[in-house]
Amino acid sequence: MYSRSIPRRKTCFAMAGSQKFLLLSALLSCLSLSSHAWKPFEVRDDLHFSLEARQANKDGSVPVYKNPKASIEARVNDLLPRMTLQEKVSQLIQGDINGWMDMSNPLDDTLVHNDTGLANMMNTRAGSIWAGYETPWEKLVYAINVGQKYLMENTTLGIPALIQSEGLHGFTDNGTIFPSPIGLAASFDAQLIHDVANVVALEAEGLGINHVFAPVLDLSRELRWGRVEENFGESPFLTGEMGYAYVHGLQDGRRRNTSSTAIARVAATCKHFAAFGSPQGGLNLAQVTGGERELRTTYLRPFERACLDSLSIMTAYASYDGVPAVANSHLLTEILRNEWGYKYWVTCDAGSIDLLITMHGTCATRECAAKAALENGLSGEMGGGTYTYETLAQQVKAGQVDVKFIDDTVRYILRTKFSLGLFENPYPYADYAASLRTPASQAVLQQADRETIILLQNNNKVLPLSKNIGSIALIGPQVNRVSFGDYVFFNATNNAISPLVGFHQYLANVSSSMKINFAQGAELWSNDQSGFPEAVQAAQNSDAAIVMVGTWSLDQTLLWTPGTNATTGEMRDQSDLGLAGSQLELIKAIQSTGKPTIVVFVTGKPVAEPWVKDNVDAIIHQFYPGEYGGRAIAEVIFGDVNPSGKLSLSVPRDVGTTPAFHNYLKGGRPASNPGSMLDDGTLHFGNQYVLNNPQPLWSFGHGLSYTTFQYSNLKLSPSSVSHTAKTVKVSVTVANTGPVTGKEVVQVYATDTLSSVVTPNQELIAFSKVEIAPGASTTVNLEIEVHNLGLWSGSNKWVVEPGTFTIKVGTSDQTFQNATLTVT
Amino acid sequence: MYSRSIPRRKTCFAMAGSQKFLLLSALLSCLSLSSHAWKPFEVRDDLHFSLEARQANKDGSVPVYKNPKASIEARVNDLLPRMTLQEKVSQLIQGDINGWMDMSNPLDDTLVHNDTGLANMMNTRAGSIWAGYETPWEKLVYAINVGQKYLMENTTLGIPALIQSEGLHGFTDNGTIFPSPIGLAASFDAQLIHDVANVVALEAEGLGINHVFAPVLDLSRELRWGRVEENFGESPFLTGEMGYAYVHGLQDGRRRNTSSTAIARVAATCKHFAAFGSPQGGLNLAQVTGGERELRTTYLRPFERACLDSLSIMTAYASYDGVPAVANSHLLTEILRNEWGYKYWVTCDAGSIDLLITMHGTCATRECAAKAALENGLSGEMGGGTYTYETLAQQVKAGQVDVKFIDDTVRYILRTKFSLGLFENPYPYADYAASLRTPASQAVLQQADRETIILLQNNNKVLPLSKNIGSIALIGPQVNRVSFGDYVFFNATNNAISPLVGFHQYLANVSSSMKINFAQGAELWSNDQSGFPEAVQAAQNSDAAIVMVGTWSLDQTLLWTPGTNATTGEMRDQSDLGLAGSQLELIKAIQSTGKPTIVVFVTGKPVAEPWVKDNVDAIIHQFYPGEYGGRAIAEVIFGDVNPSGKLSLSVPRDVGTTPAFHNYLKGGRPASNPGSMLDDGTLHFGNQYVLNNPQPLWSFGHGLSYTTFQYSNLKLSPSSVSHTAKTVKVSVTVANTGPVTGKEVVQVYATDTLSSVVTPNQELIAFSKVEIAPGASTTVNLEIEVHNLGLWSGSNKWVVEPGTFTIKVGTSDQTFQNATLTVT
Repeated sequence: MYSRSIPRRKTCFAMAGSQKFLLLSALLSCLSLSSHAWKPFEVRDDLHFSLEARQANKDGSVPVYKNPKASIEARVNDLLPRMTLQEKVSQLIQGDINGWMDMSNPLDDTLVHNDTGLANMMNTRAGSIWAGYETPWEKLVYAINVGQKYLMENTTLGIPALIQSEGLHGFTDNGTIFPSPIGLAASFDAQLIHDVANVVALEAEGLGINHVFAPVLDLSRELRWGRVEENFGESPFLTGEMGYAYVHGLQDGRRRNTSSTAIARVAATCKHFAAFGSPQGGLNLAQVTGGERELRTTYLRPFERACLDSLSIMTAYASYDGVPAVANSHLLTEILRNEWGYKYWVTCDAGSIDLLITMHGTCATRECAAKAALENGLSGEMGGGTYTYETLAQQVKAGQVDVKFIDDTVRYILRTKFSLGLFENPYPYADYAASLRTPASQAVLQQADRETIILLQNNNKVLPLSKNIGSIALIGPQVNRVSFGDYVFFNATNNAISPLVGFHQYLANVSSSMKINFAQGAELWSNDQSGFPEAVQAAQNSDAAIVMVGTWSLDQTLLWTPGTNATTGEMRDQSDLGLAGSQLELIKAIQSTGKPTIVVFVTGKPVAEPWVKDNVDAIIHQFYPGEYGGRAIAEVIFGDVNPSGKLSLSVPRDVGTTPAFHNYLKGGRPASNPGSMLDDGTLHFGNQYVLNNPQPLWSFGHGLSYTTFQYSNLKLSPSSVSHTAKTVKVSVTVANTGPVTGKEVVQVYATDTLSSVVTPNQELIAFSKVEIAPGASTTVNLEIEVHNLGLWSGSNKWVVEPGTFTIKVGTSDQTFQNATLTVT
Repeated sequence: MYSRSIPRRKTCFAMAGSQKFLLLSALLSCLSLSSHAWKPFEVRDDLHFSLEARQANKDGSVPVYKNPKASIEARVNDLLPRMTLQEKVSQLIQGDINGWMDMSNPLDDTLVHNDTGLANMMNTRAGSIWAGYETPWEKLVYAINVGQKYLMENTTLGIPALIQSEGLHGFTDNGTIFPSPIGLAASFDAQLIHDVANVVALEAEGLGINHVFAPVLDLSRELRWGRVEENFGESPFLTGEMGYAYVHGLQDGRRRNTSSTAIARVAATCKHFAAFGSPQGGLNLAQVTGGERELRTTYLRPFERACLDSLSIMTAYASYDGVPAVANSHLLTEILRNEWGYKYWVTCDAGSIDLLITMHGTCATRECAAKAALENGLSGEMGGGTYTYETLAQQVKAGQVDVKFIDDTVRYILRTKFSLGLFENPYPYADYAASLRTPASQAVLQQADRETIILLQNNNKVLPLSKNIGSIALIGPQVNRVSFGDYVFFNATNNAISPLVGFHQYLANVSSSMKINFAQGAELWSNDQSGFPEAVQAAQNSDAAIVMVGTWSLDQTLLWTPGTNATTGEMRDQSDLGLAGSQLELIKAIQSTGKPTIVVFVTGKPVAEPWVKDNVDAIIHQFYPGEYGGRAIAEVIFGDVNPSGKLSLSVPRDVGTTPAFHNYLKGGRPASNPGSMLDDGTLHFGNQYVLNNPQPLWSFGHGLSYTTFQYSNLKLSPSSVSHTAKTVKVSVTVANTGPVTGKEVVQVYATDTLSSVVTPNQELIAFSKVEIAPGASTTVNLEIEVHNLGLWSGSNKWVVEPGTFTIKVGTSDQTFQNATLTVT
């Protein structure tokens, strides 16, 4: 979704104030408990056969599609022929609860709806309903109840809707907000990601939201792009594993009182299919350059891993090698449907079919755009545009579009709905509040906020700070602030703990005497240095200085409000990856006091500031945290939590040295004779680059601990395997050789030593996070999927080629153990 | 070629000092006049049939291949069956005159060769001979005479060699050095480029060089790459036109005393095939990302336009979408041979077959590498590696390589040789000196140096400077220096006029009184500012200040010498596109004097310095000039020459805003709400980019004049045309509305208004340079090739799609006139 509120308002069904009806809040409970309160009525104008024939079987029996015990395929096949063309088309177009509710004021809690608006909406856009508004839960539940009840009881066939909202790192309507995906991925903990998504779905499910637009499986390989924070990093494998965990965390389970054939309680949405993450120039929506091999080996792998079970997929806005994703038959039909056998719903992103006309230049008319999208394999049209799919019914009647495409597409959405059990119970639960913001969810939140923090550097073990020191300085614009990533709602930060509060809370429990000297020093968005003296004074008055700087994004309201500022988030693309404004100078000023200086980057993307690496005592990277982030950073700094996050993407020295990702193709990053400029301005000339180094400051997978780990005894079992085998077992002994308990991420990388086409110099291929007590050691068992050793061959096939593979255990730029795997 | 001298020395045939023979210089003239001085002898060890049967027909008649009047195909077909396997293989491997001459000392002029070395070389590497050494002409001619004579007279079949050198912007061995290709392209004058190449060939031809490694048709779309200066810019069309002119300028004509079927006097070499110009990260040799559509519509178009007549093509080092160019059957066989019908020689670049083993990782052995290259379509192996092709004979004998591949490949080189008429006369001309550095060539040089200078900005018409002012300051590290681009030989600059000398020369002719205050102010390669006060004083003492700054490259000796510095050239890749060292600060210091400040960028790539654009009075861009460059810049600044160069590539604001090219795909560069940072540090936040602007400082095609031009009366004839038509005529009236004669480049751009795949927002499609007197106007007639309006379709075909095209006359970011072309 982008700029949802703005284009939407141009085109969506607008409800006039005079049409509002005030309903008592008591009605809500009535609606949510009784499913037969209203009589059905028929508003279709394209009905060509009798109501009775569509609603019931000739023999009077209940139609198969209404039979909870019938198979999903039988129900789909029974329902489809009963549908009119208009009913079919209305399944393909996203509606909006604002059709029958005034959602304009987030604080308004009147339970009022508009019957005419409701009927109109359900007549034309009834397949899925956007409900992603910031609104009181009670009102959301009311709106959804009204909508689903109308569909179930007032329409001929009683087809419930997908009810949609956002949930990229937390259910957006006052649900629990977790770290941004870039941070979640840094946990390298698939179970944790599963647990996080489980909370998102739990909070959504009770409210009647059955379709969540997450996870994002784009790869963060073009760091200028504003949406880097929404992704799980640069690695196809890590992204696939995190995505798989997120999809299953959202979906696994079953809604209450649904059929036994239902397989999910909330539909996930893998997005953005495909190759959206590397727009030219880092400019959101811009075309992506790439070939079939890069598509197959890089961009598609997370989707193939994570999304075959996902009940929906969302397409990208961009084109890939000149073909817009919304009308890309190779992606949507040949690969997704024919090769992968994907059988669920594929929606476009907001307004993106219209972009065929206004941006891509491949259609001149809405009719052309709708036909191009549908026939090439897109299922549904999201709002935010002109609803081009409204032209489809007429195009079918005129013989311009084969109804077969529409029938196939309706099958996809029906399959998704039956898989959710919506025909049995599409309603919110009366006790929804019991699932929201629960203590159990808070425990997951705490774990997520703790495990996503990355210790990049720790010279002379300056961290953890002793709890016995007299004072700390908290300095910088990220101290007294909560920096969430995008895809949260206005004021979501009200539920969160800022670092300033977090340190006070933390120290209140552990130290009655330690003083906190806070001085902001600088704004994020300014070069003003007038606050420096106060900040320097604070550092000088303290035993250690913690400087918190970084990037910032905005919530979904402010992000799209003209005149706001932010350096990351959707449609906030950067040409520079250093710190904005005076932040670097602030760090320099504090460092020059000689006090132990700990820099905390709170950001949505890597920070390219070599000076900081070279000059401060310790560096922590906290990607945009969740609500507990301000407390978790204190816990890490004082050692109650031993950091265990690892970089989900590499940190370049400079925007001019990008891309910095670890899995570049062989030969892609010569290390020959880099140049440099010293701090005093001295130029040391090299070749590549003349005055810089293509090697990242820190590479993918990097992250320190307060303890140390030693690896030994790497074993592959078997060490020789057929290319048709499923898996190879990897075991390695990891010992905690340091003073404290710690979690280590065991990372396994593979290099194809000889291949028919050029393969990556290395590729993450397995990982596992383990906790080990000091002095203890453990054998970590992992599995390599042999399939993942493959390449996209010269004859356009995925092939695992016989030969040897170097299997190393380590981070991308450090090898702890290695072994050779032979594939026969 | 890269690092030629370094890897070469590891592997090439080394001639021991004791084997040297001193020959009298008199022998040279003997050799060059008599073609029968020596007796042939046979050294082959794989000869399986009689000498006589191979040398002569059974009936005693002269073999067809020796018949100058026979067709080339007949000669090829006659000669091939006479060749032994070893003779065939030796045709495929590049030899080197250092096999029989000591070329290590550029100043050594002793005419000495080694017979054993000669025989060994010609036995194994006889197809083409590298002669690209800096050496006295007399010695070069001697070496070539010795070699060709040996081949003609001492080998069974008498097959002469291709004799190879460099000629990217001038024949390298003390020939005339012209502006670098990036500058030549800025002339937008195809006839001039033809004339330049004609001089290069003329100088080479007399010396016996018959094969020149030029032109480069890579596209400068990744500006960090060091080799940007070697290319004709960012536009496939401009590059194709310039390349076509260069190929024909080199080739057109016929060597003396050759057969009537010969079609060229020197073989051109289109390089680097293909898609070499956009290495990942700008790092030389790194892989290139891209798909089939981008390959067809961007990278291949210059080759298809310029190279079908070129007698050779050189492959790229890099891989494209994972397939190394040297073993890419899609490029080398499917497209080049089968689709395009190319029938001449395709050499690899130095050492690049070995990179299959050492970089790309697609082969483990030399045998594999040789086989992969040959069988996928590469013809010949250049030196610089391990001579993997030496394995081919044994592989054929062992049945591992089908001799058919070798036969096909030998046909290609024989065809190139017969096309050059070498079998009749492969020798240098005795009067070679008469062709070198002639007055006629100097005239071409002067025109080239004048027409490649671009006036980027001219606030308040500060330029041209009056010849009556009292003094000028010449400031900056490019004043007392000649900055050639790469691909020149050591000390080539000795033939050139530096700006300091050029201004003195110029003013000596026009003004006896004007004072030149020269102060270098800064070094190119340092942040030292100790020279600033002197420079500021020079400016203050003058009526105007000319500040010459930029990038620098090195000659082919120094460029590969460890410890040297340079910011551009082969294997000198930059991560930053601003001025190095203290140059920007020097400009600021001079500008702050308040004197009229004219900045001259002398560079091999665009300079991304927005401050300069915003703050100085005039800006001239002189891409690395030719020998006359220092004089030409004076002529432009004082108005004797009215500048007429146009940018051959767009100038980005910053490396972080690249790519900046004008012909991005639709939707590729949103202009929505750019941000900025003011000089005082104030941050104005925007979206794309947050603090920057994706629009270039100056776009492709931009260039001012001292006069003004008005366009009118644009006509297309016809305005509606079949997609199968050849051309559309474009005419437009251009009036010189200013005070002086000027040359204008009429540029025609096309936009496909509606297309089945995403097409560029605009594409240069025709141009013409015309000179118009003040007050005069002229009708400029151009032609659009309808073929060039096509796209690479979803069904993988080049298709000109019916519809409308917007045809505009203007520069890429400025439209003077437009019209609609309808294609039916």
